[in-house]
Amino acid sequence: MPVLRVALAQTNPVLGDIDGNCSAVLRWSRKAADQGASLVAFPELAVTGGPLRDLGSQPAFAAASAAGLTRLAADLAAEGLGKVSVVVGYLEGSDSTQRADGSGCAAHNAVALLRDGHVVGRSFKHRLPHHGVFDEVRNFLPGNSLMVACVDGTDVALAVGEDIHAPAVFAEAGAGLVLQVCAAPYHVGGHHGRMTALARLARAAGTPVASVNAVGGQDELVFHGGSSIVAADGSQLATAAHFVEDLLVAELDLPAAGDPAAGTRRIALPAPKIVDPPPQPIPVPRHPPAEPGEVWQALVTGTRDYARKNGFASAVVALSGGIDSTVVAVIAADALGPENVLGISMPSVFSSDHSMFDAEELGQRVGLDFRVVPIQPVVDSVAALLPVDGVALENVQARARGMLLMAVSNQEGRLALNTGNKTEYSCGHNTLYGDQVGGYAPLKDVPKTLVWALARWRNAQAYACDTPAPVPERTITKEPSPELQPGQVDSQLLPAPYEVLDRILARYVEDQLSRDELVADGFDADVVDCVIEMVERGEFKRQQAPPGPKISVRAFGMDRRMPITNRFVVHGHSASYFPAPTVTAVNHT
Amino acid sequence: MPVLRVALAQTNPVLGDIDGNCSAVLRWSRKAADQGASLVAFPELAVTGGPLRDLGSQPAFAAASAAGLTRLAADLAAEGLGKVSVVVGYLEGSDSTQRADGSGCAAHNAVALLRDGHVVGRSFKHRLPHHGVFDEVRNFLPGNSLMVACVDGTDVALAVGEDIHAPAVFAEAGAGLVLQVCAAPYHVGGHHGRMTALARLARAAGTPVASVNAVGGQDELVFHGGSSIVAADGSQLATAAHFVEDLLVAELDLPAAGDPAAGTRRIALPAPKIVDPPPQPIPVPRHPPAEPGEVWQALVTGTRDYARKNGFASAVVALSGGIDSTVVAVIAADALGPENVLGISMPSVFSSDHSMFDAEELGQRVGLDFRVVPIQPVVDSVAALLPVDGVALENVQARARGMLLMAVSNQEGRLALNTGNKTEYSCGHNTLYGDQVGGYAPLKDVPKTLVWALARWRNAQAYACDTPAPVPERTITKEPSPELQPGQVDSQLLPAPYEVLDRILARYVEDQLSRDELVADGFDADVVDCVIEMVERGEFKRQQAPPGPKISVRAFGMDRRMPITNRFVVHGHSASYFPAPTVTAVNHT
Repeated sequence: MPVLRVALAQTNPVLGDIDGNCSAVLRWSRKAADQGASLVAFPELAVTGGPLRDLGSQPAFAAASAAGLTRLAADLAAEGLGKVSVVVGYLEGSDSTQRADGSGCAAHNAVALLRDGHVVGRSFKHRLPHHGVFDEVRNFLPGNSLMVACVDGTDVALAVGEDIHAPAVFAEAGAGLVLQVCAAPYHVGGHHGRMTALARLARAAGTPVASVNAVGGQDELVFHGGSSIVAADGSQLATAAHFVEDLLVAELDLPAAGDPAAGTRRIALPAPKIVDPPPQPIPVPRHPPAEPGEVWQALVTGTRDYARKNGFASAVVALSGGIDSTVVAVIAADALGPENVLGISMPSVFSSDHSMFDAEELGQRVGLDFRVVPIQPVVDSVAALLPVDGVALENVQARARGMLLMAVSNQEGRLALNTGNKTEYSCGHNTLYGDQVGGYAPLKDVPKTLVWALARWRNAQAYACDTPAPVPERTITKEPSPELQPGQVDSQLLPAPYEVLDRILARYVEDQLSRDELVADGFDADVVDCVIEMVERGEFKRQQAPPGPKISVRAFGMDRRMPITNRFVVHGHSASYFPAPTVTAVNHT
Repeated sequence: MPVLRVALAQTNPVLGDIDGNCSAVLRWSRKAADQGASLVAFPELAVTGGPLRDLGSQPAFAAASAAGLTRLAADLAAEGLGKVSVVVGYLEGSDSTQRADGSGCAAHNAVALLRDGHVVGRSFKHRLPHHGVFDEVRNFLPGNSLMVACVDGTDVALAVGEDIHAPAVFAEAGAGLVLQVCAAPYHVGGHHGRMTALARLARAAGTPVASVNAVGGQDELVFHGGSSIVAADGSQLATAAHFVEDLLVAELDLPAAGDPAAGTRRIALPAPKIVDPPPQPIPVPRHPPAEPGEVWQALVTGTRDYARKNGFASAVVALSGGIDSTVVAVIAADALGPENVLGISMPSVFSSDHSMFDAEELGQRVGLDFRVVPIQPVVDSVAALLPVDGVALENVQARARGMLLMAVSNQEGRLALNTGNKTEYSCGHNTLYGDQVGGYAPLKDVPKTLVWALARWRNAQAYACDTPAPVPERTITKEPSPELQPGQVDSQLLPAPYEVLDRILARYVEDQLSRDELVADGFDADVVDCVIEMVERGEFKRQQAPPGPKISVRAFGMDRRMPITNRFVVHGHSASYFPAPTVTAVNHT
C-alpha cells in the first residue's frame, strides 16, 4: 500500500501579483519538501489571487497567469524541487469559445500538476457558482472532465471548489485520494458547512479527501483557511489554522494506482446546466451563533490585508466615544499596530463630555495617536452661507467630520476607516459623504449587537492575558446616540430595540424571509413594515458605501444586488407597494 | 389567409409598482383595441419593471407579480377587452428547484397570453444572459419549451429577449409569426444590432417577426423602445418611436394555423448549457459613431425617470462655467423643466472671472434658478483646523463644494446631479465626496469629447428652432480647468489630449483591448501604460460613485466589475505588475 506524504499549503495570494504569488508557491514547496512531503497543494487561483471578477476574462491576464505557471514549474525544478508533485490553482486562457457579448474570450478556473520542471496535467473547474458573491458563470468557461493523476503510486482525483458538490463523479473515478483546491470566503457557519460537504464526499467516494483553502483578505472577502484532511469514513484527520498562512502535513496510507505508469487520465463529465443545484442541499442551521473570536480574526485579517495590499501602512479613525468607532480603532490597532493608528475626536456643540473623555481614554488604553479637532467652525461657516436646519443641519455636522477625516487621510497618506455597522447600513442611518466616508468599513457586515459582543470578547481576551482591556467600560454600557441634536439617542430613532432589530434584519436581509414570514415568526407587523421600508429605501446610500469584510451569509455589496428605484415592499397580508414617494422620504442624504 | 392586426405597446414600467404597471397595460390595451388590434403585446417584465436584480428571486415578489397578472386578466375582461389577446412579460415563481445556496426558490422571466379573463398560456425565457449588465442566470430559472399560441386563426410563437438567438427553434416551430417581448438597454449601436438579429430570425424562421421593447430609465439603464415589425425576408415594415411610450399598430397577412382549435402547443427545448453563445455571433462594428441627438434623448430619459421614479420634482447642479456642468444643467432643464433646476456657482480664490460669468449666463439662457455661494469660508475654516496643502487642499475645495451642494439638496429636497464625465471617472480625476457627490450622474458614461459634441448638437437644435442656444460659446471653446490651483489646466494633468485619451479609453474599457493591442493600434506605449494605470487605480473611487445612464457598450457600474485590490497591469511586451504601491499613489482621495 503506497504511503503518500501530503502537504496542504494555505497561502495568502495578492490579486494580480503573479510573480509574488509564484514566489510564495516556491517558498512553501521548499518547506513542504523539507518536511518530507511528496505532494504539496495550493489553493484555487493561488497563482493569480481572486476573486478576479472581470479581470478573469481578460485574455492578457490569462496569458500572464499561464506563463507564470510555466516559469514556476521550471523554477521548482531549478531549485531542486522537481520530484515534488505541486498542485496549484491558476487561470488558463481559452480561445475555443467566444463570449456571449462577442467581446473576447473567456478563461478557465484551472488547477495544474507540476513535476520535473513541467506542467504534467491541467484540469478546469466544472461547477461554476453564480450565487452570493460569485460571478463565475460570467467570466469562466466550465471544464468537461475530471483529471486523475498518478502521484507516487496512488491515483489522486483533482477538484476545484464547488466541483465536490457532485460526489458521484468521484466515486466513479476510483481514485485513492480526492484533492480539492478551493478559496472559500469566510462567513459565520461556513467552515462547518465546508466540513460537512467534505465528509459527505469522502463517504460517497470511499476515499480520504484533502482540501486546501486560501487565507487573507481581498476587498469584501476574507478567506479563512482551515485546510483539512478527512478520512474515507468522513471523520476529520487534521485541520490547519484559521486566517493565517499555514502548512498541514500528513502521511496517508492509500491504495495503489490501477496503472502506476498511466500518468494522468480523464473522466468525461456532462456539460453543466445553467441550473445545477447541489444534488442533496446540505442543511445548514440558519444563523449559527457568531463566535466573537472567529469574527474578530476575520475583521482584523480583512482590514490588515486591504491596507497592506493597497499600500497603506497607517490608518485614521474618527472616534466618537461610542462603541462602533471604538471597536474599529481596536481592530485597526490589532491589524496595523497601535502606533500606526490615529484616532480623531471631532466634537460639536451637541457632543457630551463623556464622548471626548471616552475617546481619549480609548486612545490611551490602546496606545493610539490621538487628536481633537472641533467641527463647529466648519459647521458655522456652512450655516453662514446657506439656510440649513433639521436633517440637513445634522448632515452638515456629519459631513464636516467626513471632510476633516479625509483631509487627514489625504495629507498623511492614511487609510480612512469607516465606522458604520450593518444595522446602520441596513436602516440607512448614516449620512452619505458624512459618517459613511472611508476606504474600508470593518464593521459593514457586523450587526450592532455583535459589535457589543466583540468589544466584550476583546476585553476578556485582554484580561486573560493580563493586559489592559482596550474598550472603556462606559463605552460598552452607555446608551448609543448620534449626538447630532440635543439629547438625541438611537432608541428614539429606531423602530425597535437593537436586540429585536438585529433579529428582524438577519431574517430579512440574510435569510430573505418575506414580510409575512417575519410576522408569522412573531415579530410585530408595524415594526417589520417599518424595517423593510428603511432597508429598501437605503439602497441608494449602500451603493456608494466603502467595501467591508463579509462575515455573514449575505453581506451588502456584491452579495445582495438590489435596484435603487424600487416601489415594492410587502405590507399587510397581501402584497402592496411603497406609497408614491415624497421628496423628503427618499431624501438623498 | 388570416389577417392579424397587431399592436406593440412600448410602455415605461416603474420597478416594483405592479398595480401601476398593470393599469398601464389596461390603458394601452384599450387604445390598441380602439385601433382595431386583436393582439397587443407589452415588453419583457412589463408587469414588474426591470432589471429586478436580486428582487427577481424573492418568492413574495414573484407571488405578487403572478397575482397581479391574474387580476389584470380579469380586469381586461371586466373592461370589455376580453376578446383581445394580450401578451405581457411578468415574473412567475417556481418552487421546483432550490437555489444553489439553498436560500430559497428562484423564479422565471415569463411571458403570458391573456384572453377572455384568463391566463391562457405562459412561457418562460430560455436563454438567460449573464454578461454585461445582466445577472439573469443568478436570479432566474430557464424555461424548457417554446410556446406557440393560436391567435385569430394564426400560430404565434412567443420569445422573451435573448431567446431569439436560437433561430433554428423558430424555424422548427412552423408558426405564422414570431412575437418577441424584450427590454433591451440602450447603448450606441444597440438598435442596429437588435434589428440585424430580428432580420436574421425572420429569414431563418421564414415568418415575420414583431418585437416590442420597453422604454424609460431604471437606475443605470435606459430602455430605448424602437419596437419593430420585420417581414419574412428580413426587411423592416414598421418601427415605433425611440425613448417615449408609443403604440405601433400593423396589419399582417399570415398563414392559417395548423390546427385553429389547438389553443397553445409547446415545443420542447434542450436545457441551456452554462456556455451557450449565440450560434453565429453578430458582427457589430466597434464604436459606431455616437449620434448626439440619440445620446441626448437617452441622457434626458435616464435623468427624468431617475428623478420621477424616486419622487424628485427638482434638481440642483453645481455650475463651474465649464462644459460638463453646463451640459448636465441643460439635460436637467430638458428633463425636469428649467424652473425646477437650481444652478449653484461656488467660486473659490482660484476661480477665473469667466467661470462665474459663464455660469450666470447659462442660468439666464436656460431660465434656471441661479445662486452664488462662495466656498472660501468653508475652506478657510478647515485650513485653520488642520495642516492641508497640495492634493489634500485641492480635495478640501472640492469637498466644500460637495458639502454645500448636498446641504441645498437636503434642505430643499432636490436631487443632486453629479457632473463627472466618463473620461474623468476612467482616470480617477475627481475627488471622492467632492465633485463625485450626487444622486445621479448623467454624464458618467459620456467621454469628454462627446460632451462637447452634445453641447454643439444641443445649440444647433436650438438655432434650428429659433430659440436661444443654451450653451454659452465660450464654455465650448475655452480650455478645460479644474481651477483648484492658480493657472491649472486639464492638459497639464492628463497624459494626452482628450481626443487621444478618449480613443484609448474606448479601446481599453469598452473593447477590452490589452496593452499590447493598444500599442499595436498605434498609440504611444508610455501614454497607454499611464492610462491603464490611472484606470485601474481609480477603481476604489468608482465603486463609491453615483449611478448614471449607460450609453456605451461597457459602462462603469454593473457592466464592468473589477477588483479594487489589483496589482496587475500589462507593461512592455510581457506582463508585469503595478510596482509595490506607495501611499500617495493609491491615495484614497
